Amino acid sequence: MRAVLDYLEGHQQRFVEELCEYVRHPSVSAQSRHKKDMKRCAEWLAAHCRALGLEVRVHATPEHPIVVARTRRRRGRRHFLVYGHYDVQPPEPLELWRTPPFEPEVRNGALYGRGASDNKGQHWAHLKAVEAYLRTGTELPCDLTFVIEGEEEVGSRSLQGFLQRHRKELACDAVVVSDTGLPAPDLPALTYALRGIAAFELTLHGPNRDLHSGIFGGSVHNPAVVLCQLLGRVHDARGRVVIPGFYDEVEPLTAEERRQLRRLPFSERAYRKFLGVPALFGESGYTPNEQRMARPTFEINGLTSGYQGEGSKTIIPAWARAKVTMRLVPNQNPAVILRRVRAFLRKHCPRSVRMEFVPGHGCRPYRLDPEHPWARAALRALERAFGRTPVLMREGGSIPIVNQFHEILRAETILVGLALPDDNAHSPNEKFDLRVFARGQRMSAWLWQELAG
Amino acid sequence: MRAVLDYLEGHQQRFVEELCEYVRHPSVSAQSRHKKDMKRCAEWLAAHCRALGLEVRVHATPEHPIVVARTRRRRGRRHFLVYGHYDVQPPEPLELWRTPPFEPEVRNGALYGRGASDNKGQHWAHLKAVEAYLRTGTELPCDLTFVIEGEEEVGSRSLQGFLQRHRKELACDAVVVSDTGLPAPDLPALTYALRGIAAFELTLHGPNRDLHSGIFGGSVHNPAVVLCQLLGRVHDARGRVVIPGFYDEVEPLTAEERRQLRRLPFSERAYRKFLGVPALFGESGYTPNEQRMARPTFEINGLTSGYQGEGSKTIIPAWARAKVTMRLVPNQNPAVILRRVRAFLRKHCPRSVRMEFVPGHGCRPYRLDPEHPWARAALRALERAFGRTPVLMREGGSIPIVNQFHEILRAETILVGLALPDDNAHSPNEKFDLRVFARGQRMSAWLWQELAG
Repeated sequence: MRAVLDYLEGHQQRFVEELCEYVRHPSVSAQSRHKKDMKRCAEWLAAHCRALGLEVRVHATPEHPIVVARTRRRRGRRHFLVYGHYDVQPPEPLELWRTPPFEPEVRNGALYGRGASDNKGQHWAHLKAVEAYLRTGTELPCDLTFVIEGEEEVGSRSLQGFLQRHRKELACDAVVVSDTGLPAPDLPALTYALRGIAAFELTLHGPNRDLHSGIFGGSVHNPAVVLCQLLGRVHDARGRVVIPGFYDEVEPLTAEERRQLRRLPFSERAYRKFLGVPALFGESGYTPNEQRMARPTFEINGLTSGYQGEGSKTIIPAWARAKVTMRLVPNQNPAVILRRVRAFLRKHCPRSVRMEFVPGHGCRPYRLDPEHPWARAALRALERAFGRTPVLMREGGSIPIVNQFHEILRAETILVGLALPDDNAHSPNEKFDLRVFARGQRMSAWLWQELAG
Repeated sequence: MRAVLDYLEGHQQRFVEELCEYVRHPSVSAQSRHKKDMKRCAEWLAAHCRALGLEVRVHATPEHPIVVARTRRRRGRRHFLVYGHYDVQPPEPLELWRTPPFEPEVRNGALYGRGASDNKGQHWAHLKAVEAYLRTGTELPCDLTFVIEGEEEVGSRSLQGFLQRHRKELACDAVVVSDTGLPAPDLPALTYALRGIAAFELTLHGPNRDLHSGIFGGSVHNPAVVLCQLLGRVHDARGRVVIPGFYDEVEPLTAEERRQLRRLPFSERAYRKFLGVPALFGESGYTPNEQRMARPTFEINGLTSGYQGEGSKTIIPAWARAKVTMRLVPNQNPAVILRRVRAFLRKHCPRSVRMEFVPGHGCRPYRLDPEHPWARAALRALERAFGRTPVLMREGGSIPIVNQFHEILRAETILVGLALPDDNAHSPNEKFDLRVFARGQRMSAWLWQELAG
């Protein structure tokens, strides 16, 4: 390992220059004018992997190509997938960037540019670790396949079919993804759980047209009032969801999990100011980090009814609608939760309005037991690379591809993210910390040792 | 009176032809392309009144002229104002009219055309009654001033200043307005009460921007959820408003008032089908007609928050807003009610969101005691003209000019409307029933006798 680690240390400058070249590609998957840039970026990446000695294929899809680069497969070796994405978020608004998004620049120990952190820099760290093994003639203790897609920022529409079509060659022991975060440059983290999601749209239909509130008001139920009554009874005063069965399958946080979440740097005052709210509010009995990472929620994302223009219009609206998404935690099931929510709403909806409930997308929550061998291996690699006990983190958001790996490849996912909270992912002035970049390469180098067992 | 009544009976054909000529003017106050038509209509009306022997002035305003036509003033006579408006609603959508809106046509005993019922035909009935007195040399028992404005359909913006500037010459014993309705062609009605109104806009401000519901959801209060909770608690299950003091000043319906409202033809089944609702709903203990004419309401007119487009967007909205209007009944005061509503909302609004309460327009409810001499006089005139005991009605809507007459001229208003429920006011195929037109002229002729006392 000495040779591998020395190689990494000795080539940081070049690695950063290569990453600059990678970031220079305006690989914006959402904007059709960048369609050619996407292709060029995928081909540049493929060429780079080929030059490292990997076996590379660029798979065409209906949208953007998927780059697959693999080490030589050997009998009896474990096989791991490394997932990443070369597409980036749109850089707009451009006027808020200090330097242009696709002209990367190193400032204060960080590389600035769209995609530097999300996600080019993160999978570049893994690629460079593999390069170190290959160039120093050190034997890689396991086989690796990089799957770098180009549609992550637009919903990974092509990935599912790709995984299904190539499930045999992609069969693996686990998937490694660096696309989450760590709390601080010197505090490594393993993200062992993600929240899931369940969406629905609730529409209450009242009269067959907007009615004059003077002529008719009082004798007919106002669907906007009923919507408020229905949704207003979902939470109790302590912030808990009162829908029967909502928490039935929720796995309670263990004392150790709560201890780990308390290790995350957190200032309630700074957080409150950052959000701009007069006071925080959440389910009582839980800290803000527990509330947003490890507890389920019921959120109204949008309300629409009646007149929304200037001034007032004296109507009883014909209908009222709410868009709702719930964040789910292990082991809640989106379909089961949607069924219970629908039953609750139906029970409380008066028969003076007609209720329409349209279920939307769902995504299961994910959890990798921190005691699982893969989790233990990742924690050891993180500790070796960063020189500090990693923290066990949960992510409040959902990463649907993790469920796809689980469902299609039957593989667990190891989330060892390298993004800092202030990396400005999806925002202007995105950056990637170069200390974290270097530590990430070392973590990757150790990870293959630890995972090989 | 015989001469007057005979004159009316003998000239119906001509009166209808004149009304056709009046309706032919496309006096659409809301549409600037009809500005000249408005002026022409006012001048045509003025010329007609002048030819009858009235003293006429056309008063210019910043928008549309007001026509004032008066009989000769005599000492010791009572003086009544007759209010009407020559402006009409826009006729669109034109394709739904069976015959063009400004090419009046008589079909099945009704005159079809925009403005036939609202309000040209109704004040035409009064004008023709006066003509009958003047042409038959019958002495008018009181002095009359017609005030026919051209901005009723766009908010009567010029009327208030006009009344204030001419308060001396307009000083009167009462105002007569035919701009409300009667339940059936042979069932005359005195509208003795109107609901008032109080409007406000409630905005709840949460985080300083829409937040990612995965990263932050659970630890910060969702203003759309809080809006639903706040507004969802305004009504109890029986449809009553629970805001303290909301009903304090409400004058209870007397047994006689309830008996009168029960006289109105009403089919709950037909009403429900007409509105297209699965079931009616209102404050328990009251009939639908009582609920919509004589009880106060709290109606959400519009809801706005977060994402309203296609599909879903996983955000905690930065803010949520409701537009609310309350219909008020005698003797509720809009300012007092708004204060109580604000206090209620403030008390129940959690400090995790910032509440913004913007009061809007208000209009007091109106009530003329059915035992008042003017009311008794009107009831007698209606009975004489229609040959049937009139019904005492209330109107669920608000007529702000009635408050202006009360506040500026200190005069009560006698509401003897001639519009039928199916006259299609504000809708395509507006019509005016010619039997009601004739009976309205007789009612007007008798009214001056009864009001003169």
